[in-house]
Amino acid sequence: MISGFDSALTGHLFADGEIARLFSDSAVIRAMLIVEGALAKAQGEVGMIPAESAAFLHRAAMEVSIDPAALADATAQNGVPVPALVAAFRAAMEAPDHAQYAHWGATSQDIVDTAMALRTRQALSLIEARLDAALSKLADLAEHHAETPMVARTWGQAATPTTFGAVVAGWGEGLLAVRMPFDAVRRRVEVVTLNGAAGTAAILGRDAPALRMAMGKALGIAVPRGSGHAERGQMRALANILSELLQAANKPATDLLLLTRDGDVRLGGGGGSSTMPQKSNPVGPSVIGALAAHGVGLAASLQAPHWDQRDGAAWMAEWLALPPLLVATGKVMSLLRDLEIMPDVDIMRARLDDPRGLVHAEAVSFALTKEMSRPDAQARTKALAQEVRASGGNLIDAAGLAREDFTPEQRWGEAPELARAFARAVRDG
Amino acid sequence: MISGFDSALTGHLFADGEIARLFSDSAVIRAMLIVEGALAKAQGEVGMIPAESAAFLHRAAMEVSIDPAALADATAQNGVPVPALVAAFRAAMEAPDHAQYAHWGATSQDIVDTAMALRTRQALSLIEARLDAALSKLADLAEHHAETPMVARTWGQAATPTTFGAVVAGWGEGLLAVRMPFDAVRRRVEVVTLNGAAGTAAILGRDAPALRMAMGKALGIAVPRGSGHAERGQMRALANILSELLQAANKPATDLLLLTRDGDVRLGGGGGSSTMPQKSNPVGPSVIGALAAHGVGLAASLQAPHWDQRDGAAWMAEWLALPPLLVATGKVMSLLRDLEIMPDVDIMRARLDDPRGLVHAEAVSFALTKEMSRPDAQARTKALAQEVRASGGNLIDAAGLAREDFTPEQRWGEAPELARAFARAVRDG
Amino acid sequence: MISGFDSALTGHLFADGEIARLFSDSAVIRAMLIVEGALAKAQGEVGMIPAESAAFLHRAAMEVSIDPAALADATAQNGVPVPALVAAFRAAMEAPDHAQYAHWGATSQDIVDTAMALRTRQALSLIEARLDAALSKLADLAEHHAETPMVARTWGQAATPTTFGAVVAGWGEGLLAVRMPFDAVRRRVEVVTLNGAAGTAAILGRDAPALRMAMGKALGIAVPRGSGHAERGQMRALANILSELLQAANKPATDLLLLTRDGDVRLGGGGGSSTMPQKSNPVGPSVIGALAAHGVGLAASLQAPHWDQRDGAAWMAEWLALPPLLVATGKVMSLLRDLEIMPDVDIMRARLDDPRGLVHAEAVSFALTKEMSRPDAQARTKALAQEVRASGGNLIDAAGLAREDFTPEQRWGEAPELARAFARAVRDG
Amino acid sequence: MISGFDSALTGHLFADGEIARLFSDSAVIRAMLIVEGALAKAQGEVGMIPAESAAFLHRAAMEVSIDPAALADATAQNGVPVPALVAAFRAAMEAPDHAQYAHWGATSQDIVDTAMALRTRQALSLIEARLDAALSKLADLAEHHAETPMVARTWGQAATPTTFGAVVAGWGEGLLAVRMPFDAVRRRVEVVTLNGAAGTAAILGRDAPALRMAMGKALGIAVPRGSGHAERGQMRALANILSELLQAANKPATDLLLLTRDGDVRLGGGGGSSTMPQKSNPVGPSVIGALAAHGVGLAASLQAPHWDQRDGAAWMAEWLALPPLLVATGKVMSLLRDLEIMPDVDIMRARLDDPRGLVHAEAVSFALTKEMSRPDAQARTKALAQEVRASGGNLIDAAGLAREDFTPEQRWGEAPELARAFARAVRDG
Repeated sequence: MISGFDSALTGHLFADGEIARLFSDSAVIRAMLIVEGALAKAQGEVGMIPAESAAFLHRAAMEVSIDPAALADATAQNGVPVPALVAAFRAAMEAPDHAQYAHWGATSQDIVDTAMALRTRQALSLIEARLDAALSKLADLAEHHAETPMVARTWGQAATPTTFGAVVAGWGEGLLAVRMPFDAVRRRVEVVTLNGAAGTAAILGRDAPALRMAMGKALGIAVPRGSGHAERGQMRALANILSELLQAANKPATDLLLLTRDGDVRLGGGGGSSTMPQKSNPVGPSVIGALAAHGVGLAASLQAPHWDQRDGAAWMAEWLALPPLLVATGKVMSLLRDLEIMPDVDIMRARLDDPRGLVHAEAVSFALTKEMSRPDAQARTKALAQEVRASGGNLIDAAGLAREDFTPEQRWGEAPELARAFARAVRDG
Repeated sequence: MISGFDSALTGHLFADGEIARLFSDSAVIRAMLIVEGALAKAQGEVGMIPAESAAFLHRAAMEVSIDPAALADATAQNGVPVPALVAAFRAAMEAPDHAQYAHWGATSQDIVDTAMALRTRQALSLIEARLDAALSKLADLAEHHAETPMVARTWGQAATPTTFGAVVAGWGEGLLAVRMPFDAVRRRVEVVTLNGAAGTAAILGRDAPALRMAMGKALGIAVPRGSGHAERGQMRALANILSELLQAANKPATDLLLLTRDGDVRLGGGGGSSTMPQKSNPVGPSVIGALAAHGVGLAASLQAPHWDQRDGAAWMAEWLALPPLLVATGKVMSLLRDLEIMPDVDIMRARLDDPRGLVHAEAVSFALTKEMSRPDAQARTKALAQEVRASGGNLIDAAGLAREDFTPEQRWGEAPELARAFARAVRDG
Repeated sequence: MISGFDSALTGHLFADGEIARLFSDSAVIRAMLIVEGALAKAQGEVGMIPAESAAFLHRAAMEVSIDPAALADATAQNGVPVPALVAAFRAAMEAPDHAQYAHWGATSQDIVDTAMALRTRQALSLIEARLDAALSKLADLAEHHAETPMVARTWGQAATPTTFGAVVAGWGEGLLAVRMPFDAVRRRVEVVTLNGAAGTAAILGRDAPALRMAMGKALGIAVPRGSGHAERGQMRALANILSELLQAANKPATDLLLLTRDGDVRLGGGGGSSTMPQKSNPVGPSVIGALAAHGVGLAASLQAPHWDQRDGAAWMAEWLALPPLLVATGKVMSLLRDLEIMPDVDIMRARLDDPRGLVHAEAVSFALTKEMSRPDAQARTKALAQEVRASGGNLIDAAGLAREDFTPEQRWGEAPELARAFARAVRDG
Repeated sequence: MISGFDSALTGHLFADGEIARLFSDSAVIRAMLIVEGALAKAQGEVGMIPAESAAFLHRAAMEVSIDPAALADATAQNGVPVPALVAAFRAAMEAPDHAQYAHWGATSQDIVDTAMALRTRQALSLIEARLDAALSKLADLAEHHAETPMVARTWGQAATPTTFGAVVAGWGEGLLAVRMPFDAVRRRVEVVTLNGAAGTAAILGRDAPALRMAMGKALGIAVPRGSGHAERGQMRALANILSELLQAANKPATDLLLLTRDGDVRLGGGGGSSTMPQKSNPVGPSVIGALAAHGVGLAASLQAPHWDQRDGAAWMAEWLALPPLLVATGKVMSLLRDLEIMPDVDIMRARLDDPRGLVHAEAVSFALTKEMSRPDAQARTKALAQEVRASGGNLIDAAGLAREDFTPEQRWGEAPELARAFARAVRDG
């Protein structure tokens, strides 16, 4: 397969069965037929097509089976699958009197976009559930390690003490912040599209609003104001929010790649090497990183404007990018949820207990302000730190202070509270 | 100047004075000093630093003048302007006893990020006001031309009749849809950052929450939960929403580049050529297109994760991208607001009145369903259209139908209502 | 299928059989086995493994059949398919004494990257052949229409006369310019990777260079200096050159979307609409546009640095992006080659023969320099053009010049020569 | 200033004087005037304009001084600076008889693009010289540390021994590989553009080729085949090669951020913190990382096709992106050249001498193949490694092997030779 998501070899690495099922060719065709069926049903109700035909079409849309491969050539010819799908649907019914009423007054984009909305809704529900489960696990982890001290790093360098719980809370807050905008985007994309040939619903006439309402009700999705045929802000918003979720997940993934380098954190289920027997590679965070990078690229591919009242090129670019983006996000959420994150509290503590005491330099400099001005205290601590680095010794001793005043527990500031506040925020929903 | 925004030559083309002022070097320094002043004031109130020093620092922060160029070398050395700024601030006060309390317990990122929040708030207010003005003008335009018929195009080809008002409404709906998420993003980025060296506010101690509240109140911005030092979802959300706004504006810009090709729309204030005296180039939409493309690139540059508790590289990438992105969006909103869009209703009508009548093919095919099945009607209309294309004549005549049943007014469907619904939505806020 | 390239429904629209075959799961596994076989053969020759085992492994690598799905779970566990592949390969041989010598001293990346090089080579050969065929057709078209006059447009507006051949030559020059760097990139990526666990070939010892040479010879690819495990400039160069090719093709595609709007150019094999019988949509250029946008995004996803001596995340991002990028480029080249581009010379001519004569404004202004200074001539022509626009008439008449001096043929400058020079350049190779 | 490159505060951090000078407004105007002068001179030589006027214009182009700010409004109006520049140039000469011959038959894009080529040539020369200096320093460093052992890491984990010289060579090879394509791109972009209003040089007539040759000779740049007005592959190639150079530099930068975390490498001139006296932040690699991310975004902004014979929007996007991209690359090359990279050979060695001996697991497993089959040896080593990890001890001992057979020096494979081969390649040019 061309795509790593579809490949039998790498499909489990990059995708999963639950998500993949939503994007099988038969699921795509099924979704389009469901839309045609809902349209016919609604048109029967308002009397736009005969009630009997409407009922027949609605039932047939659920029952007929259409081979995707049989539509491939016509799809390549027309640029959209719908003309061939409608023809195949009509033929499959073997009831031309009813069949003729299929797809009445709709255009290809009405069917493709509404069907995509149905599949997107399912995918976003899965993503949301996985995100919530990941948040819940991170909340537990943050709380459990609210007081597990470790070295905070800034610009990569040891900075001051923090706790592992606070670090986990930072990861979680990033994900939690996407929850609300994620819901807002769902309301924009899980919608009916029924606007006819050029967005004016000309053939549908005065009944168009009623049809949309009926379809929305039947399909469980909303009805937007205006035609979304050519203004695709909703699709860019979807791509962007998925990208934001991927990047939020890539923060813990990247930190875990840093923390697993020297054993500060171990992960369950490490990957084996083909030649190095000692290796336990951090596969989960690496896959998250790869999918996050891929997702950024996919989102970037949807930034061209759609021309006029409906566009071919920019619309097809959506078909290429959105399913992989949804799958990548779904997989990343499940990888994140399933990470077994095991901090090695001894290794973490040992880094803090660096005999030179440099990680307490800020605290030392503020302690010295009892004796001298702040700028002098800072300059003096800096000089002492350079001495300790060059010639050994301990910064706290060198500053004439007492080591027992510089335990991590005294110097981790709000770290435990950051951990607990995040856990509370998750639990309070 | 390296940037087209800063250049004296192209600064008016790509930026404007109102926005540029927000990002002058002195405005940047001013904003950082205001933050230092607000911090000192808050610390005086809780008794963390002497009240007299706090008052002195707060006043000094508003009064001292610091030369940006004098900080340039130290900024290059340290990677951040704050150490040099604090030193210059202390020196400028000429009151070491008070000066020593400046920047107490804060870290560079607290100052830089809060100052950026202040400048961002001003820029976003300007952007919002311009967006609202543009929406209001588009609402007027849509309503005025609710019944101005024109050819809708799909895949670039003449499709069916619509109205210019409906087209304008489509542009406007795309912008309107960004209003709500725009507000939501504002609430995430217009915030105090005060988290100390490694996000734990260790030196600030138990007073940290009170300090943040006081600073937020003084500066007119909110206080977030958790430290945003290293989880930068809010910055990606800002970049993405600005990009969404740019792309929403690029839809009318691109359609206007298409509509001005042959006179369907004329624009006020066209650009002159250096060699072709007849030219009136669509400069406004072109600048929008250029800035939209630039903005997509800038937003893409912010997708790498920040490492650990604070990152240098990814943070500096924000400094490089966000001011230009804000300026580009501000300029695009004012260009959009100021476009003089003049449809040539005669040219538009003439295209609809194509003597071959092909733009009514869909309507013809549905009219024929009174005599034959829908598939037959469609096939017959397709055959007739090919005949008309090859040998001349008129599709409506050829189908044995009456031309008076195929006026644009009868066939523009919901177009006028789309125009008016958008105008109502803008006015109802 | 998650990817539009792999879908049975849209696979013909976005991919093709020839290219898809190169990326089937079995082709991927086949390529990796070929690499293992070539490695064993080379190791037999230098005596690193027993000659008999080498011969056995080399033969087995061509004969065994391994089910991709059987490797899926272990691939997901290890992050790479090679450990499971080697195990399955060894098991399938049913000759443990020989099997143990498989993959001797190699690492997963040696196998995956060299196998990717083999598939890339085949894909690039197809792309190159299609590009050459497209160039040849464009050369014919340019030459045939070297003297077919049309309006040149700048900023979308009618500018001066040119010829369709010159326009086609412009498209072709853009593609031709990629030929040389394309070859240079091929030399960088069609290479053996054999560097062992950490790029030092530690287990292979002094024989490593000889092994690489032998493998390169057997596989028909080159041997690079240094290890490419972690420095991936070659992969970014590949992504960029494919993106450059896609963008070069997107120039004619975009111009054709503009030229087909009103019949200046018609395309063979237009796409049908599901509801508008008159439509003949420009599907080919639209697919090119969609794939070009998708390709830009894919290339952008490969810009993160690989960490240390080998990276997991950034490496996997290549697996996700490169096959779709190769397929997209292959498809675009065949679409470009197969476009039937039919200019309507009458419509083109009619636009030039605009009765107002404005397209000759530059020429008029230079003609007037016989009577007045250039600035005066330009100002006068500008004033006349505005009059003609407002009140009718003809610019040439108004300027007191003779219409017969302003035929397209006299005013198209180098256009015919541009067309012919391109055609010569293609034919001279 | 809106851009961090132009800011007095951060200009030294992100840009430098040498590069900034090339992009000052006066340098831009100077370059455009030089092009106008060269055009006039060439036109005088072929008799297209009076010889005396040509000489006058050529001299005036070097002498007049035009205030960029005076052109700002007209530039914003016209979308290009050239109409106002030509008017100001003519006015400044105070010799209307000569002045009228300025810009004869050229179009704005001829001037802007050729002037950009001149500035690009200077910038690329600086970039090239800095790259060569960086390569030379890396060659020295690689050779000096060809036998400085360190742990190679894959997927972030300790893998096998390598040497620091080999690691440096990997960095250098990535940069060296860009040298040749960099030269090839220079030949494509350092060219004359002289194609007139619509790419046909209609006003220049038969003399156009001679004019281009003369201008190329005078300006020291080449003459391309065809008009590059609308086919911008050369600009995308420029953006891509700069991006490739940035990413090649970001590989050592990123590895240095990893290696400085715990002291394996120290850098000269570390950055200070505003609150933590012990900090010595890796500013250089961080700036490289920021500029590399920024550069990727800028390059991505140039991927839209130019429409028709000349485009406004896509062309202006180049003006916004290319100067910052050139400056960013120039700065990155000088940062890379100036990095003081000091490996701590003791810390590096200490990591290799991990008492558990796990870094020798691959070597142990191959040593065991003397006693058992390779799969058995691998499985046994894996089991022993797990034991050692869980219960302590040393892998080499546990495997019954002799520790003296597992020194880094015996197990670093080709590492020293990789270092030296790179150094030779740099020196051999």
